[in-house]
Amino acid sequence: MSDLVSKVSPDEMAVGIDIESCQTLPASADPWSDSFYRENFTAAEIAYCVRQADPRLAFCGLWSAKEAAFKCGGKIAKLAPREIEIVHEPGGQPRLRLPNESAQAAFGDYQVSISHSTGMAIAVCVKRSQTILVPP
Amino acid sequence: MSDLVSKVSPDEMAVGIDIESCQTLPASADPWSDSFYRENFTAAEIAYCVRQADPRLAFCGLWSAKEAAFKCGGKIAKLAPREIEIVHEPGGQPRLRLPNESAQAAFGDYQVSISHSTGMAIAVCVKRSQTILVPP
Amino acid sequence: MSDLVSKVSPDEMAVGIDIESCQTLPASADPWSDSFYRENFTAAEIAYCVRQADPRLAFCGLWSAKEAAFKCGGKIAKLAPREIEIVHEPGGQPRLRLPNESAQAAFGDYQVSISHSTGMAIAVCVKRSQTILVPP
Repeated sequence: MSDLVSKVSPDEMAVGIDIESCQTLPASADPWSDSFYRENFTAAEIAYCVRQADPRLAFCGLWSAKEAAFKCGGKIAKLAPREIEIVHEPGGQPRLRLPNESAQAAFGDYQVSISHSTGMAIAVCVKRSQTILVPP
Repeated sequence: MSDLVSKVSPDEMAVGIDIESCQTLPASADPWSDSFYRENFTAAEIAYCVRQADPRLAFCGLWSAKEAAFKCGGKIAKLAPREIEIVHEPGGQPRLRLPNESAQAAFGDYQVSISHSTGMAIAVCVKRSQTILVPP
Repeated sequence: MSDLVSKVSPDEMAVGIDIESCQTLPASADPWSDSFYRENFTAAEIAYCVRQADPRLAFCGLWSAKEAAFKCGGKIAKLAPREIEIVHEPGGQPRLRLPNESAQAAFGDYQVSISHSTGMAIAVCVKRSQTILVPP
């Protein structure tokens, strides 16, 4: 062990998990005009969810992902739900996006995953640790 | 690739997940005097759970977190449930605490997260990998 | 910060989660002769599941683990379910195995965990990040 070239001081890795019943979210024929959805989801998120076969279940998944991100603690836990945007890659994979690049750099890097079953959604969020090297 | 200054030998990262129905845990009017709760939870955990709106659901969450920790395998899997204490930060975030500091150092660093829905709890536990640097 | 010996360029860490109802999988008195099970599970997986108290729930857990792996994205998402084999350590811990050693090296290292409750399974998969060191 004496020949280690340096020590490693890892930044905080963190994990959050969430399970939500769709019943948690208000039923709404038009989420675009519903105050709950307008306050908690971005326009891009609403546009994504209303395109899905079961919009309420889709919203439930995004809600679950935001909750999982909050549960990672730290700076991200102080954001409002609408400030944590869940976008989808062309292949369908969800990705967490913060309001601007400086927030993204300051908050660190988060990975999310979402899954649905009958009437419920679960999500997990992991904050990637950042390894900082210090001289021996 | 020839100009890498060193190789990296990461310690084992590990992950465990658990889902539990509250029905798994015995109903009890007084967990303080119930052998199941006394054997599997610390005094601090019992004190925390009986203060919650739904004590059995709270116990179910802690139980799920302990199970998720066991599923990470390795040394932690050999502990008794009562030796893996789940404490809560002032902000409500759960944290896994091992019996003493030397165990904490030897076992590595675990992050847990817990979520509840109607009558069930889920939890995830991630063992942080520790990067050890070796000379090239 | 000026005395850092090197920068670190981490490979992509990734996470996937999945929840499945057993109803998703076809009921079968003999999975060995059922095309769904033969197409999606290896012989070792079928042999494992039919030995369990509730074979369909066991298959549901493995299916959930494969889905969680797909959700990590990247190269592993292009495999067929049968190419992601879930084996079990002597202690019962699940482990993800790719078809051959070169795939395992190229795809990176995945950790999985599975849990069951009444009629459903959940799983999480984490792709370990690989730290590559570059000279300062």
